[in-house]
Amino acid sequence: MADTEVVIEPGRQDIVVTRVFDAPRDVVFAAYTDPDLVPRWWGSGRFTTEVDRMDVRPGGAWRFVARKADGTGYGFRGVYHDVVAPERIVSTYEFEEGGPGRLQLQVDTLTEVDGKTELVVVSLFQSVEDRDGWIPAAGIEKSVQESMDLLEEIIRERPRPGATDRSGRSA
Amino acid sequence: MADTEVVIEPGRQDIVVTRVFDAPRDVVFAAYTDPDLVPRWWGSGRFTTEVDRMDVRPGGAWRFVARKADGTGYGFRGVYHDVVAPERIVSTYEFEEGGPGRLQLQVDTLTEVDGKTELVVVSLFQSVEDRDGWIPAAGIEKSVQESMDLLEEIIRERPRPGATDRSGRSA
Repeated sequence: MADTEVVIEPGRQDIVVTRVFDAPRDVVFAAYTDPDLVPRWWGSGRFTTEVDRMDVRPGGAWRFVARKADGTGYGFRGVYHDVVAPERIVSTYEFEEGGPGRLQLQVDTLTEVDGKTELVVVSLFQSVEDRDGWIPAAGIEKSVQESMDLLEEIIRERPRPGATDRSGRSA
Repeated sequence: MADTEVVIEPGRQDIVVTRVFDAPRDVVFAAYTDPDLVPRWWGSGRFTTEVDRMDVRPGGAWRFVARKADGTGYGFRGVYHDVVAPERIVSTYEFEEGGPGRLQLQVDTLTEVDGKTELVVVSLFQSVEDRDGWIPAAGIEKSVQESMDLLEEIIRERPRPGATDRSGRSA
Protein backbone atom coordinates (compact mmCIF):
# COMPACT_ATOMS: atom_id res chain seq x y z
CA MET A 1 0.00 0.00 0.00
CA ALA A 2 1.17 3.52 -0.76
CA ASP A 3 1.22 6.22 1.88
CA THR A 4 -1.23 9.07 2.03
CA GLU A 5 0.29 12.44 2.83
CA VAL A 6 -1.90 14.68 4.98
CA VAL A 7 -0.61 18.24 5.45
CA ILE A 8 -2.23 20.38 8.14
CA GLU A 9 0.04 23.41 8.34
CA PRO A 10 -0.33 25.62 11.45
CA GLY A 11 -2.14 28.89 10.80
CA ARG A 12 -3.55 27.88 7.41
CA GLN A 13 -7.23 27.33 6.59
CA ASP A 14 -6.80 24.14 4.59
CA ILE A 15 -5.96 20.44 4.71
CA VAL A 16 -4.01 18.99 1.78
CA VAL A 17 -4.19 15.25 1.10
CA THR A 18 -1.93 13.63 -1.52
CA ARG A 19 -2.01 10.02 -2.69
CA VAL A 20 -0.38 8.27 -5.64
CA PHE A 21 -2.26 5.41 -7.30
CA ASP A 22 -0.54 2.91 -9.61
CA ALA A 23 -3.09 3.33 -12.39
CA PRO A 24 -3.80 5.67 -15.31
CA ARG A 25 -5.70 8.87 -14.55
CA ASP A 26 -8.85 7.79 -16.43
CA VAL A 27 -9.14 4.72 -14.22
CA VAL A 28 -8.63 6.68 -10.99
CA PHE A 29 -11.09 9.40 -12.01
CA ALA A 30 -13.75 6.88 -13.02
CA ALA A 31 -13.47 5.00 -9.72
CA TYR A 32 -13.37 8.21 -7.67
CA THR A 33 -16.57 9.58 -9.24
CA ASP A 34 -18.63 6.36 -9.37
CA PRO A 35 -21.65 6.55 -6.99
CA ASP A 36 -21.83 2.75 -6.84
CA LEU A 37 -18.30 2.58 -5.43
CA VAL A 38 -18.57 5.37 -2.82
CA PRO A 39 -19.99 3.08 -0.08
CA ARG A 40 -16.85 0.93 -0.40
CA TRP A 41 -14.32 3.68 0.38
CA TRP A 42 -15.83 7.01 1.55
CA GLY A 43 -15.85 7.88 5.24
CA SER A 44 -14.48 6.13 8.25
CA GLY A 45 -14.72 2.49 9.24
CA ARG A 46 -17.20 3.15 12.06
CA PHE A 47 -19.89 4.18 9.57
CA THR A 48 -21.56 2.80 6.50
CA THR A 49 -22.09 5.30 3.68
CA GLU A 50 -25.30 5.65 1.67
CA VAL A 51 -25.30 7.74 -1.50
CA ASP A 52 -28.49 9.80 -1.53
CA ARG A 53 -27.43 11.91 -4.55
CA MET A 54 -24.25 12.14 -6.61
CA ASP A 55 -24.71 14.02 -9.84
CA VAL A 56 -21.12 14.61 -10.96
CA ARG A 57 -21.50 17.60 -13.28
CA PRO A 58 -21.25 21.40 -12.80
CA GLY A 59 -24.26 22.44 -10.70
CA GLY A 60 -24.99 18.84 -9.75
CA ALA A 61 -25.67 17.99 -6.13
CA TRP A 62 -24.20 15.28 -3.92
CA ARG A 63 -25.46 14.04 -0.57
CA PHE A 64 -24.11 11.11 1.45
CA VAL A 65 -25.43 9.72 4.72
CA ALA A 66 -22.91 8.17 7.15
CA ARG A 67 -24.79 5.72 9.33
CA LYS A 68 -23.70 4.22 12.64
CA ALA A 69 -24.46 0.61 13.59
CA ASP A 70 -27.38 1.85 15.75
CA GLY A 71 -29.00 3.42 12.69
CA THR A 72 -28.20 7.09 13.45
CA GLY A 73 -27.43 8.91 10.21
CA TYR A 74 -25.32 12.03 9.57
CA GLY A 75 -25.80 13.96 6.33
CA PHE A 76 -23.03 15.50 4.22
CA ARG A 77 -23.79 17.42 1.06
CA GLY A 78 -22.58 19.90 -1.53
CA VAL A 79 -22.66 20.92 -5.17
CA TYR A 80 -20.15 20.54 -7.98
CA HIS A 81 -18.75 23.81 -9.31
CA ASP A 82 -16.43 22.22 -11.87
CA VAL A 83 -16.05 18.70 -13.20
CA VAL A 84 -13.27 18.42 -15.79
CA ALA A 85 -12.71 14.71 -16.41
CA PRO A 86 -10.22 13.24 -15.70
CA GLU A 87 -8.26 16.10 -14.14
CA ARG A 88 -10.20 18.38 -11.82
CA ILE A 89 -13.24 18.55 -9.55
CA VAL A 90 -14.24 21.61 -7.52
CA SER A 91 -17.09 21.15 -5.08
CA THR A 92 -18.56 22.39 -1.84
CA TYR A 93 -18.84 20.21 1.25
CA GLU A 94 -21.10 20.75 4.23
CA PHE A 95 -21.79 18.70 7.33
CA GLU A 96 -25.53 19.16 7.87
CA GLU A 97 -25.30 18.97 11.65
CA GLY A 98 -23.32 22.22 11.73
CA GLY A 99 -20.46 22.95 14.07
CA PRO A 100 -16.91 24.04 13.23
CA GLY A 101 -15.72 23.31 9.74
CA ARG A 102 -19.21 22.51 8.52
CA LEU A 103 -18.67 24.33 5.24
CA GLN A 104 -15.67 23.62 3.04
CA LEU A 105 -14.54 24.19 -0.53
CA GLN A 106 -12.86 21.09 -1.99
CA VAL A 107 -10.50 21.06 -4.96
CA ASP A 108 -9.44 17.68 -6.35
CA THR A 109 -6.60 17.60 -8.89
CA LEU A 110 -5.44 14.45 -10.72
CA THR A 111 -2.08 14.42 -12.48
CA GLU A 112 -0.67 11.46 -14.43
CA VAL A 113 3.07 10.76 -14.51
CA ASP A 114 4.50 7.57 -16.06
CA GLY A 115 1.18 5.72 -15.83
CA LYS A 116 0.71 6.58 -12.14
CA THR A 117 -1.79 9.13 -10.92
CA GLU A 118 -1.33 11.66 -8.15
CA LEU A 119 -4.58 12.74 -6.50
CA VAL A 120 -4.39 15.97 -4.48
CA VAL A 121 -7.43 16.92 -2.40
CA VAL A 122 -7.45 20.43 -0.90
CA SER A 123 -10.16 21.11 1.69
CA LEU A 124 -10.53 24.81 2.40
CA PHE A 125 -12.19 26.00 5.62
CA GLN A 126 -13.73 29.34 6.57
CA SER A 127 -11.13 29.91 9.30
CA VAL A 128 -8.13 28.29 10.99
CA GLU A 129 -10.39 27.67 14.01
CA ASP A 130 -12.96 25.88 11.81
CA ARG A 131 -10.24 23.70 10.34
CA ASP A 132 -8.63 22.91 13.68
CA GLY A 133 -12.05 22.13 15.19
CA TRP A 134 -13.15 19.87 12.37
CA ILE A 135 -11.51 16.68 13.52
CA PRO A 136 -8.35 16.26 15.62
CA ALA A 137 -5.48 15.94 13.19
CA ALA A 138 -4.62 12.37 14.15
CA GLY A 139 -8.22 11.30 13.55
CA ILE A 140 -8.28 12.86 10.11
CA GLU A 141 -4.99 11.30 9.15
CA LYS A 142 -6.15 7.82 10.12
CA SER A 143 -9.56 8.02 8.44
CA VAL A 144 -8.15 9.57 5.27
CA GLN A 145 -5.45 6.88 5.08
CA GLU A 146 -8.13 4.19 5.49
CA SER A 147 -10.33 5.72 2.79
CA MET A 148 -7.46 6.05 0.35
CA ASP A 149 -6.36 2.46 1.02
CA LEU A 150 -9.88 1.27 0.25
CA LEU A 151 -9.97 3.39 -2.91
CA GLU A 152 -6.66 1.84 -3.96
CA GLU A 153 -8.14 -1.65 -3.56
CA ILE A 154 -11.04 -0.69 -5.80
CA ILE A 155 -8.73 0.84 -8.39
CA ARG A 156 -6.56 -2.28 -8.50
CA GLU A 157 -9.63 -4.35 -9.43
CA ARG A 158 -10.69 -2.02 -12.24
CA PRO A 159 -10.03 -2.97 -15.85
CA ARG A 160 -7.27 -0.94 -17.49
CA PRO A 161 -8.05 0.77 -20.81
CA GLY A 162 -6.91 -1.55 -23.59
CA ALA A 163 -6.09 -4.39 -21.19
CA THR A 164 -7.07 -7.87 -22.24
CA ASP A 165 -9.13 -9.94 -19.87
CA ARG A 166 -6.86 -12.01 -17.67
CA SER A 167 -8.13 -15.34 -16.45
CA GLY A 168 -6.77 -16.90 -13.32
CA ARG A 169 -5.85 -13.58 -11.73
CA SER A 170 -5.77 -13.44 -7.98
CA ALA A 171 -8.77 -12.01 -6.12
CA MET B 1 -23.92 57.05 2.48
CA ALA B 2 -22.85 54.39 4.95
CA ASP B 3 -19.32 53.08 5.07
CA THR B 4 -18.28 49.68 3.84
CA GLU B 5 -15.82 47.83 6.06
CA VAL B 6 -13.28 45.72 4.19
CA VAL B 7 -11.10 43.53 6.40
CA ILE B 8 -8.02 41.93 4.83
CA GLU B 9 -6.14 40.51 7.79
CA PRO B 10 -2.47 39.57 7.20
CA GLY B 11 -1.88 35.81 6.93
CA ARG B 12 -5.53 34.88 6.45
CA GLN B 13 -7.08 33.41 3.30
CA ASP B 14 -10.19 35.58 3.25
CA ILE B 15 -11.60 39.04 2.68
CA VAL B 16 -14.53 40.13 4.86
CA VAL B 17 -16.80 42.93 3.64
CA THR B 18 -19.48 44.38 5.93
CA ARG B 19 -22.14 46.95 5.02
CA VAL B 20 -25.27 48.11 6.83
CA PHE B 21 -28.30 49.09 4.74
CA ASP B 22 -31.15 51.13 6.15
CA ALA B 23 -33.83 48.70 4.96
CA PRO B 24 -35.47 45.45 6.08
CA ARG B 25 -33.69 42.21 5.26
CA ASP B 26 -36.31 41.06 2.72
CA VAL B 27 -35.77 44.22 0.71
CA VAL B 28 -31.97 43.93 0.76
CA PHE B 29 -32.05 40.23 -0.14
CA ALA B 30 -34.48 40.79 -3.02
CA ALA B 31 -32.35 43.59 -4.48
CA TYR B 32 -29.09 41.66 -3.98
CA THR B 33 -30.38 38.58 -5.82
CA ASP B 34 -32.24 40.27 -8.69
CA PRO B 35 -30.53 39.58 -12.05
CA ASP B 36 -32.11 42.68 -13.57
CA LEU B 37 -30.39 44.88 -10.99
CA VAL B 38 -26.89 43.33 -11.12
CA PRO B 39 -25.71 45.53 -14.04
CA ARG B 40 -26.46 48.60 -11.90
CA TRP B 41 -24.16 47.73 -9.00
CA TRP B 42 -21.89 44.70 -9.58
CA GLY B 43 -18.26 45.22 -10.49
CA SER B 44 -16.17 48.31 -10.88
CA GLY B 45 -16.94 51.57 -12.68
CA ARG B 46 -14.57 50.84 -15.58
CA PHE B 47 -16.73 47.94 -16.75
CA THR B 48 -20.32 47.30 -17.69
CA THR B 49 -21.75 44.04 -16.38
CA GLU B 50 -23.86 41.63 -18.44
CA VAL B 51 -25.73 38.83 -16.69
CA ASP B 52 -25.33 35.68 -18.76
CA ARG B 53 -26.90 33.37 -16.13
CA MET B 54 -28.11 33.90 -12.57
CA ASP B 55 -30.19 31.05 -11.29
CA VAL B 56 -30.35 31.80 -7.55
CA ARG B 57 -31.13 28.35 -6.09
CA PRO B 58 -28.97 25.49 -4.75
CA GLY B 59 -27.12 24.00 -7.73
CA GLY B 60 -28.00 26.98 -9.92
CA ALA B 61 -25.29 28.60 -11.99
CA TRP B 62 -24.33 32.25 -12.34
CA ARG B 63 -22.14 33.86 -14.97
CA PHE B 64 -21.45 37.57 -15.44
CA VAL B 65 -19.39 39.24 -18.15
CA ALA B 66 -17.56 42.46 -17.26
CA ARG B 67 -17.01 44.41 -20.47
CA LYS B 68 -14.60 47.25 -21.13
CA ALA B 69 -15.48 50.23 -23.33
CA ASP B 70 -13.50 48.63 -26.20
CA GLY B 71 -15.76 45.55 -26.06
CA THR B 72 -13.33 43.15 -24.37
CA GLY B 73 -15.23 40.88 -21.98
CA TYR B 74 -14.08 39.03 -18.86
CA GLY B 75 -16.14 36.11 -17.55
CA PHE B 76 -16.89 35.36 -13.89
CA ARG B 77 -18.93 32.36 -12.86
CA GLY B 78 -19.92 29.96 -10.11
CA VAL B 79 -22.69 27.85 -8.64
CA TYR B 80 -24.95 28.32 -5.64
CA HIS B 81 -24.44 25.80 -2.86
CA ASP B 82 -27.06 27.27 -0.53
CA VAL B 83 -29.73 29.91 -0.94
CA VAL B 84 -31.69 30.48 2.26
CA ALA B 85 -33.82 33.62 1.69
CA PRO B 86 -33.46 36.19 3.16
CA GLU B 87 -30.49 35.22 5.35
CA ARG B 88 -27.73 33.26 3.64
CA ILE B 89 -26.13 32.53 0.28
CA VAL B 90 -23.14 30.23 -0.22
CA SER B 91 -21.63 30.17 -3.69
CA THR B 92 -18.47 29.60 -5.62
CA TYR B 93 -16.75 32.34 -7.63
CA GLU B 94 -14.25 31.89 -10.40
CA PHE B 95 -12.53 34.32 -12.74
CA GLU B 96 -12.43 32.46 -16.04
CA GLU B 97 -9.13 33.98 -17.16
CA GLY B 98 -7.30 32.22 -14.34
CA GLY B 99 -4.49 33.70 -12.32
CA PRO B 100 -4.20 34.08 -8.55
CA GLY B 101 -7.42 34.03 -6.59
CA ARG B 102 -9.40 32.74 -9.56
CA LEU B 103 -11.39 30.34 -7.38
CA GLN B 104 -13.17 31.52 -4.25
CA LEU B 105 -15.88 30.35 -1.89
CA GLN B 106 -18.28 33.17 -0.99
CA VAL B 107 -20.54 33.23 2.05
CA ASP B 108 -23.11 36.04 2.30
CA THR B 109 -24.95 36.52 5.59
CA LEU B 110 -27.79 39.02 6.14
CA THR B 111 -28.83 39.95 9.67
CA GLU B 112 -31.64 42.37 10.54
CA VAL B 113 -31.44 44.58 13.62
CA ASP B 114 -34.02 47.34 14.32
CA GLY B 115 -35.14 47.47 10.70
CA LYS B 116 -31.59 47.81 9.36
CA THR B 117 -29.76 44.99 7.60
CA GLU B 118 -26.12 44.04 7.96
CA LEU B 119 -24.69 42.24 4.94
CA VAL B 120 -21.43 40.34 5.53
CA VAL B 121 -19.65 38.89 2.50
CA VAL B 122 -16.77 36.50 3.20
CA SER B 123 -14.60 35.60 0.19
CA LEU B 124 -12.40 32.61 0.89
CA PHE B 125 -9.28 31.98 -1.22
CA GLN B 126 -7.18 28.86 -1.76
CA SER B 127 -4.14 30.48 -0.15
CA VAL B 128 -2.91 33.72 1.37
CA GLU B 129 -0.88 34.26 -1.81
CA ASP B 130 -4.00 33.84 -3.95
CA ARG B 131 -5.84 36.35 -1.82
CA ASP B 132 -3.00 38.85 -1.78
CA GLY B 133 -2.54 38.49 -5.54
CA TRP B 134 -6.23 38.90 -6.36
CA ILE B 135 -6.36 42.68 -6.40
CA PRO B 136 -4.21 45.14 -4.45
CA ALA B 137 -6.04 45.87 -1.22
CA ALA B 138 -6.64 49.53 -2.02
CA GLY B 139 -8.22 48.59 -5.36
CA ILE B 140 -10.55 46.10 -3.74
CA GLU B 141 -11.59 48.55 -1.06
CA LYS B 142 -12.45 51.23 -3.58
CA SER B 143 -14.37 48.97 -5.97
CA VAL B 144 -16.28 47.26 -3.15
CA GLN B 145 -17.22 50.62 -1.64
CA GLU B 146 -18.45 51.79 -5.06
CA SER B 147 -20.50 48.62 -5.57
CA MET B 148 -22.06 48.81 -2.13
CA ASP B 149 -22.90 52.52 -2.60
CA LEU B 150 -24.65 51.66 -5.87
CA LEU B 151 -26.51 48.80 -4.19
CA GLU B 152 -27.61 51.21 -1.45
CA GLU B 153 -29.02 53.57 -4.08
CA ILE B 154 -31.03 50.71 -5.57
CA ILE B 155 -32.27 49.59 -2.16
CA ARG B 156 -33.42 53.10 -1.28
CA GLU B 157 -35.63 53.14 -4.39
CA ARG B 158 -37.25 49.78 -3.59
CA PRO B 159 -40.76 49.66 -2.16
CA ARG B 160 -40.88 48.65 1.50
CA PRO B 161 -43.18 45.77 2.49
CA GLY B 162 -46.49 47.31 3.59
CA ALA B 163 -45.43 50.80 2.56
CA THR B 164 -48.00 52.92 0.75
CA ASP B 165 -47.04 54.46 -2.55
CA ARG B 166 -45.63 57.92 -2.03
CA SER B 167 -46.20 60.48 -4.72
CA GLY B 168 -43.92 63.44 -5.11
CA ARG B 169 -40.88 61.65 -3.70
CA SER B 170 -37.52 62.87 -4.89
CA ALA B 171 -35.73 60.95 -7.64
